[in-house]
Amino acid sequence: MRQHSLRSVIATGAIGLVLFVALLFGANARALADPLPSWNDGPAKQAIVDFVTATTTEGSPTFVAPADRIATFDQDGTLWVEQPIYTQAAFALERVHELAPQHPEWKKQDPFKSVLAGDRAAMAKFGEGQWAEIVGATHAGISVEDFESIVGQWIATAKHPRFQRPYTELFYLPMLEAMQYLRANGFRTYIVTGGGQEFVRVFSDAVYGVPVEQVVGSSIVTRYDFNDGKPRLMREPKIFFINDKAGKPVGINMLIGKRPAAAFGNSDGDRQMLEWTGAGGGARLKMLVFHDDAEREFAYGPANGLPDSKIGTFPQALMDEAKQRGWTVISMKNDWKQIFQNEAKPD
Amino acid sequence: MRQHSLRSVIATGAIGLVLFVALLFGANARALADPLPSWNDGPAKQAIVDFVTATTTEGSPTFVAPADRIATFDQDGTLWVEQPIYTQAAFALERVHELAPQHPEWKKQDPFKSVLAGDRAAMAKFGEGQWAEIVGATHAGISVEDFESIVGQWIATAKHPRFQRPYTELFYLPMLEAMQYLRANGFRTYIVTGGGQEFVRVFSDAVYGVPVEQVVGSSIVTRYDFNDGKPRLMREPKIFFINDKAGKPVGINMLIGKRPAAAFGNSDGDRQMLEWTGAGGGARLKMLVFHDDAEREFAYGPANGLPDSKIGTFPQALMDEAKQRGWTVISMKNDWKQIFQNEAKPD
Repeated sequence: MRQHSLRSVIATGAIGLVLFVALLFGANARALADPLPSWNDGPAKQAIVDFVTATTTEGSPTFVAPADRIATFDQDGTLWVEQPIYTQAAFALERVHELAPQHPEWKKQDPFKSVLAGDRAAMAKFGEGQWAEIVGATHAGISVEDFESIVGQWIATAKHPRFQRPYTELFYLPMLEAMQYLRANGFRTYIVTGGGQEFVRVFSDAVYGVPVEQVVGSSIVTRYDFNDGKPRLMREPKIFFINDKAGKPVGINMLIGKRPAAAFGNSDGDRQMLEWTGAGGGARLKMLVFHDDAEREFAYGPANGLPDSKIGTFPQALMDEAKQRGWTVISMKNDWKQIFQNEAKPD
Repeated sequence: MRQHSLRSVIATGAIGLVLFVALLFGANARALADPLPSWNDGPAKQAIVDFVTATTTEGSPTFVAPADRIATFDQDGTLWVEQPIYTQAAFALERVHELAPQHPEWKKQDPFKSVLAGDRAAMAKFGEGQWAEIVGATHAGISVEDFESIVGQWIATAKHPRFQRPYTELFYLPMLEAMQYLRANGFRTYIVTGGGQEFVRVFSDAVYGVPVEQVVGSSIVTRYDFNDGKPRLMREPKIFFINDKAGKPVGINMLIGKRPAAAFGNSDGDRQMLEWTGAGGGARLKMLVFHDDAEREFAYGPANGLPDSKIGTFPQALMDEAKQRGWTVISMKNDWKQIFQNEAKPD
């Protein structure tokens, strides 16, 4: 009995030791695990790792206090697919079809007429005025709450025309890893998008782990309404703020009030955000995603001779500025081992 | 030796026990310590404690997830003194004097002429147009960075005319305790002020422990400037957003994107913020500071027959709405044991 008991103790101890070693090993393995597994080794991946090391190593001259660890990410084309049209534009166009029965006049009235007729050539020529009309008709005249619910329902079922997957699955896995890696190192990650703030807020937490208060975006005028004793925020068909190009540093200042330590973009809409980020002292990470992978995603520029695009334009001048200022250009083709979670097979 | 050893063990054990009990007692004492020592017992203090209990007790039907623990605080008159004029107005007026040598034309030109002449009667009649001119002349035409530095220098030395203490010492200690108590319970505390966002950001962290990204305020147009290769955010002499009255729920939606669980105000500028907060379900804390203590601070209404005031107006209609909707009115005189840290002696 006594011997049995002793054996039990030894056995228990052995199991304990095994567990202990396993835990130690596990913790160690986690610490050593590659935080960016979807990235190929190369200058882009290295730039991210070097930046995190430089800004989080205590005593380093480039150490950044946790309160100032701000990383900003453009959304369309930087965090998820933006071709063949912005997801929000797809939403707006589908909503024109949905609302058409209540607007018989649209059949004869552009830009709605072209949308309803599916006239792609006409739609491709839409300028700011036409889009403002479409946004006014599809994004306004309802409360913020109702708008969020409409977007939520749409995004839950809508699918990307080429990949035939929900848009919310078409985020770039390497960029999500970069966000998570930065967050694990005390950075707060903000989305700074030319798209609608209220649109992106609907899914920012679920898709990117970014809470709504960390979404900086374009907005229309919102009006407090209390007519019937039940307060509502009503969306008006009027632009309030365009968070694009020179608007991005302004939006960042308004919502964050601090200069980012890291900024990620992919087009001429992000140039000023990267300039603004880079003009701060110390270690700053400035990165641009370059879409050069027609097979797995899309290829467009016109930089480096790739096809021109009205959506997510990456002009040669931006490529030149990136070189001149030491911004890191991420080649989707070369730097990303995998683009999507459960990689979509391109057609 | 053996007995000595045993005695040592017992002694050590006894010391250990004493330490253990002391630790338990200490922890218990801390848990039982009054988180709101500057508040007198009464319905206002009780409302805060009850709200925190209701929203943070796991399993309670009114439990609020940490991500949604948002508390918003008006600044002027709610967190610090606003009489005889708003601190920011004092800054603007002093800056008119400072800039006057560069503007000889001001001597003959109102509203500057009245300010330079110290004509209090004329200044008291200034409307929105005059103040907009003064703000344009004193708050714009410079970069955000330069503005912050000017405000920082001013606030470090400027003193309140009655209390003869720096404005930054004239925060209400009970309100700071409420903020700290809420933060200790997982709430994020935001300042939601009709005052200038950039003005308040200069001292929000030092005075209230509120980081700049949690300051929602009024703003003027800001423009990204890159003329000389060095990016700057320039402040333009044009109003962008007024974060007051019906603007407060709009500003909250823009910067936070969530309905507050708790809101604190003191005037008709805060009515809509409290309505908006109260219209959410579950436990919501809605509080109004009522300045009824002429001896220790100021007394003004015109609610409850107190003197009327253009600054921080608390009309009878607001008092009636507070009663009707169950908002808690804080009486400075009765609810606050102490108003200022190192209590200023009133003159």
